[in-house]
Amino acid sequence: MRPPTRTLAATPPTWGLVRDDGFVDLGARHATRFPTLKHVVEANALQAMVEANVATPADHPLSALTYLPPLGNAQKIICIGVNYPDRNEEYKDAQSAAAYPSIFLRFPTSFVGHGENLVRPPESEQLDYEGEVTLVIGKPGRRIARVQALDHVAAVTLCNEGTIRDWLRHSRFNVTQGKNFDRSGSIGPWIVPFRDESQIADIRLTTKVNGEIRQDDRTSRMIYDFRYLISYVSTFATLLPGDLIVTGTPTGAGARFSPPIWLKPGDVVEVEADGIGVLRNGVEDENS
Amino acid sequence: MRPPTRTLAATPPTWGLVRDDGFVDLGARHATRFPTLKHVVEANALQAMVEANVATPADHPLSALTYLPPLGNAQKIICIGVNYPDRNEEYKDAQSAAAYPSIFLRFPTSFVGHGENLVRPPESEQLDYEGEVTLVIGKPGRRIARVQALDHVAAVTLCNEGTIRDWLRHSRFNVTQGKNFDRSGSIGPWIVPFRDESQIADIRLTTKVNGEIRQDDRTSRMIYDFRYLISYVSTFATLLPGDLIVTGTPTGAGARFSPPIWLKPGDVVEVEADGIGVLRNGVEDENS
Repeated sequence: MRPPTRTLAATPPTWGLVRDDGFVDLGARHATRFPTLKHVVEANALQAMVEANVATPADHPLSALTYLPPLGNAQKIICIGVNYPDRNEEYKDAQSAAAYPSIFLRFPTSFVGHGENLVRPPESEQLDYEGEVTLVIGKPGRRIARVQALDHVAAVTLCNEGTIRDWLRHSRFNVTQGKNFDRSGSIGPWIVPFRDESQIADIRLTTKVNGEIRQDDRTSRMIYDFRYLISYVSTFATLLPGDLIVTGTPTGAGARFSPPIWLKPGDVVEVEADGIGVLRNGVEDENS
Repeated sequence: MRPPTRTLAATPPTWGLVRDDGFVDLGARHATRFPTLKHVVEANALQAMVEANVATPADHPLSALTYLPPLGNAQKIICIGVNYPDRNEEYKDAQSAAAYPSIFLRFPTSFVGHGENLVRPPESEQLDYEGEVTLVIGKPGRRIARVQALDHVAAVTLCNEGTIRDWLRHSRFNVTQGKNFDRSGSIGPWIVPFRDESQIADIRLTTKVNGEIRQDDRTSRMIYDFRYLISYVSTFATLLPGDLIVTGTPTGAGARFSPPIWLKPGDVVEVEADGIGVLRNGVEDENS
């Protein structure tokens, strides 16, 4: 899949428009008002920036870009566990269905951008992938009603919610450790401005490793849908522009296989969703 | 306990020195170099700021101050569960001793400053206190050895790690929800520059509700000590200046009593530790 023509991406030290014909450097043009992509989100100016620059000539070829996670300065990165059918079965951890979604948090430092390598730390061989659709919040809110939930979405992106499996259960509760190894996951490749629900309501989400499909599901099958997640999370915490909600992964992670198949140096992981793009990352050993 | 004479506190929109005779506004004097207290921590300049201003006259009486959480712009607020003896027993949740500490994360928005009211949300009556000693990281590091761990501490402070108990177990894993209600906890009253281990190695930590002692223990009894926590957390995540490690609470939270005693509007909670100070907060209903 080629990069969509109407998307925004962050690259160091700038941000701009990613089009088929190249990159339009908007950070260079708007550095004072919008020093980062998060400032554009906070000003609710994503779509206006896209429309105002449809005819602006590209400044750089796409091949010249290095990608950072688009919202690397997000205050909150909120991740949803078990959220597609059959995943409970896969992890053998559900004595009974949960009444509410499982939620954990990740640090910005646990992610790399599109095209960078995920890092397998020397502490574990159990680096695993989890492809997920990710919401970028654009409007602050608390106790947001489901009917209004999507008004708070500024954009969508993808996440490879990379996990060190044997560190997930270091303690009896909380998966914090296994979800927060430096550079173990990725976000991107860019953010796509959100226009309406049809962009996300029933799109195909796949994860491939070395070209082989491992995860393949549709967002219409999510156990807790996008509207519910925004409403539920905002019950306890005020959502702010730039916050990310990583909405849970389908069945088919490497932990599922018997024996499990962990990521190893040289592998290429691609998370793809209709209308968003392909988030592609290699894998390397930290000590390589 | 009076405020220590050699401490730093953040107040909006400034930061400075809290002394018995008043507040020295250092933010006003160093706004360009150090717009926030976090910038002072990043520059490893806390102790120098204290020493350079021993004789600077106070600008405001202490009674004029309103306190914010000192590091409200921390990238990471890392909280440790079950970390003093008898707490496993209290929560009846330990089939066997954990091999590693339980870790969860909190958003900056879940805390108020010293003197502000904790907020009980309409969703629950189970607002509970947890008094904890808190480390402020001053030097970046990954895989920090225990022998060097305290070199990475810039300051110490206190946390009332306020919790909405019935939202802790909304899902099977992760206590995220019950630990992240807006304004349900507090940090402060100020940060005390760290000089040596004797400041924290064996200090008394108490929590009082309306003057009655509910939690009372010494840091020398921590299951996972300060050095271990810094070393363990930095195994997976690079610690950065301004990051906070909230090091776990003693037995005696309101959930312990039979029936449990939850905080209610009008209560006053005081978390106190030798050489750090008293973190005092009232309680109010969100809808009051």
